[in-house]
Amino acid sequence: MKFTINRAAFLKELNNVSRAISSKTTIPILTGLKLVADDNGLTLTGSDADISIEALIHADDPDNQLAIESTGAIVLPARFFGDIVKRLPEDNMTLDVTEGFQTEITSGSASFTINGLDANNYPRLPEIDATDAITLSGDVFRELINQTVIAVSNQESRPILTGVHFTLVDDQLLAVATDSHRLSQRKITLPTSASATYDVIIPGKSLTELSRMISDDNPDVEMRLSDNQVLFTIDDRLFYSRLLEGNYPDTSRLIPKEATTSAEFDAKSLLASVERASLLSHESRNNVVKLTLNSEDGKATIFGNSPDVGNVEEELTPKELTGDELEISFNPDYMKDALRSFGQTEIRIAFTSPLRPFTLVPTEDSENFIQLITPVRTF
Amino acid sequence: MKFTINRAAFLKELNNVSRAISSKTTIPILTGLKLVADDNGLTLTGSDADISIEALIHADDPDNQLAIESTGAIVLPARFFGDIVKRLPEDNMTLDVTEGFQTEITSGSASFTINGLDANNYPRLPEIDATDAITLSGDVFRELINQTVIAVSNQESRPILTGVHFTLVDDQLLAVATDSHRLSQRKITLPTSASATYDVIIPGKSLTELSRMISDDNPDVEMRLSDNQVLFTIDDRLFYSRLLEGNYPDTSRLIPKEATTSAEFDAKSLLASVERASLLSHESRNNVVKLTLNSEDGKATIFGNSPDVGNVEEELTPKELTGDELEISFNPDYMKDALRSFGQTEIRIAFTSPLRPFTLVPTEDSENFIQLITPVRTF
Repeated sequence: MKFTINRAAFLKELNNVSRAISSKTTIPILTGLKLVADDNGLTLTGSDADISIEALIHADDPDNQLAIESTGAIVLPARFFGDIVKRLPEDNMTLDVTEGFQTEITSGSASFTINGLDANNYPRLPEIDATDAITLSGDVFRELINQTVIAVSNQESRPILTGVHFTLVDDQLLAVATDSHRLSQRKITLPTSASATYDVIIPGKSLTELSRMISDDNPDVEMRLSDNQVLFTIDDRLFYSRLLEGNYPDTSRLIPKEATTSAEFDAKSLLASVERASLLSHESRNNVVKLTLNSEDGKATIFGNSPDVGNVEEELTPKELTGDELEISFNPDYMKDALRSFGQTEIRIAFTSPLRPFTLVPTEDSENFIQLITPVRTF
Repeated sequence: MKFTINRAAFLKELNNVSRAISSKTTIPILTGLKLVADDNGLTLTGSDADISIEALIHADDPDNQLAIESTGAIVLPARFFGDIVKRLPEDNMTLDVTEGFQTEITSGSASFTINGLDANNYPRLPEIDATDAITLSGDVFRELINQTVIAVSNQESRPILTGVHFTLVDDQLLAVATDSHRLSQRKITLPTSASATYDVIIPGKSLTELSRMISDDNPDVEMRLSDNQVLFTIDDRLFYSRLLEGNYPDTSRLIPKEATTSAEFDAKSLLASVERASLLSHESRNNVVKLTLNSEDGKATIFGNSPDVGNVEEELTPKELTGDELEISFNPDYMKDALRSFGQTEIRIAFTSPLRPFTLVPTEDSENFIQLITPVRTF
């Protein structure tokens, strides 16, 4: 195996594939990057057994300046090889597998010889049928991921809650995550009805890595499933993730239908106020801020308190405030995550009682995105 | 004590003074920021006992929007207070010390009440005479610091080597640092002869913090000494550091006068080559790279090697190469630090033998700046 390639084009895909490579793996060969040169071009593969990423660099794209002199395959130590490629002196580099998996990397007057591994020992990626594919706009899918993964649990005690629950019926794709203290739910209407129905749980970590691979030029993301794997295709990159096994709790009943107190805020300015209040609650043993709402005088006030350090009080400016008087306490970190997920928009918060979950929705689009937070009992 | 101030002007000095404040201190009041409001303006003080920084915000500078309603002093928890000031909603803030050191910080509709401490319990800063002052250009002094602190030792076994040795005789200021494996020496000719002579050792950590406080608009730095303290004045900021006590070793004899092999390089491209070679040496137990020089065929080659991973070899392009053939090994990290300190310039490296220290100087200014590195025996 021997090829010459443009270093920048190679580094770009090396960085993409490296997202899946961990130095903390129990399978030594997975610390490596797999390279395969064939007639199509150069394929890079990285995997940590949970996630696998494969990227193809086309031989026929002149930007890649890819010239394959002889085909073949090799596995190279990923972190180390990446450091070398980053620091090579010239725009192009040549990689040549000599005898016994020894690999020579040359660029200008610099020449590295490193020990590779037999690519035949690298685990095979799962094979996934193309039948059930749906296609989403990259921007929309990245937003869906970022809005839902915030509510994923990071406790391994209930592994099922470390994933996002995806269901697809007709043209409705629903994504839900909850760590049992809060919940985030996002709905997307597909342009056309899908032929299949989905009911799968994708690990939050996989989705976070996937969202980072969706570039800003809004590529299409194709999603397809097998029994225990999901495959996302973005341009010439394949992203595999295992699925979580088990039954996701029924979350539809958790979302209250009615409200006794309702307030509208600018999400960004409310976020700033909660951040200030949380400065003090973070110093306290129980990380809680208090919100009081009084529709009669239109006043909303937020309080934070730490017995050691002091307290903070701030009057908020709701756009609208209706319903019963209310005093409610909550974890400000959940509130901050939820408010950040809305970006710069108006939101409506709907409360029923001091001990029942409350919901946040965008005022303009209350059907497709909802955040739910369970309050904290302080009395 | 009560005042209103422009938040940005206040934050700027709060950040400067905070450099001296550590949360890991054995003297609890030093985790605080001292504020004194008097007729001149507002003085901020931070200290970790080794370094103290004091900044004055003038009442008569309209940019500061400083209005002192009543004078006084307070000590506030620094990290926490800084977080509050950063997140306040409006451009201005009001600070009001009410009863029992309770302090109210208000900005817009946000109001914090935090517990302060009695400023009378804050340690006093040393008093330093103005007699022996010398003045340096900020750019030059920052360069001197950055060029010498790299060679300071970070081992507490010989505390004296954790400082930079400053000597001043007539108009010659000399700064030297060595960790006994390498040495860096910088000379500055003052515009006028100083009245005093200096022979002091300033902790490397103090100098690093000081260099960060020298802004890019090249302010003058005034330096003056007392028995065991040095005071630097930059505009309205005072920077105190303790001095290290003891005798600094005589370093003048360490620098070889003659050379048997000499080579000229572009510092930046040699740095890139050493960085590549060190990728492999870092994976090895003994972190060493090898350089061979042969003036007959004009060839210079650098080698790095790790038994586990592989090796690297790169032919260098010296601008000039004279003297005996040589093979020498050294710690590439020392070489990288030294080369970075030259920036983008031509340097000359002078060798005497494979086991004797070699020196690096800028080709254009070989008198005022010299780096020395002790090689490593590999045979």
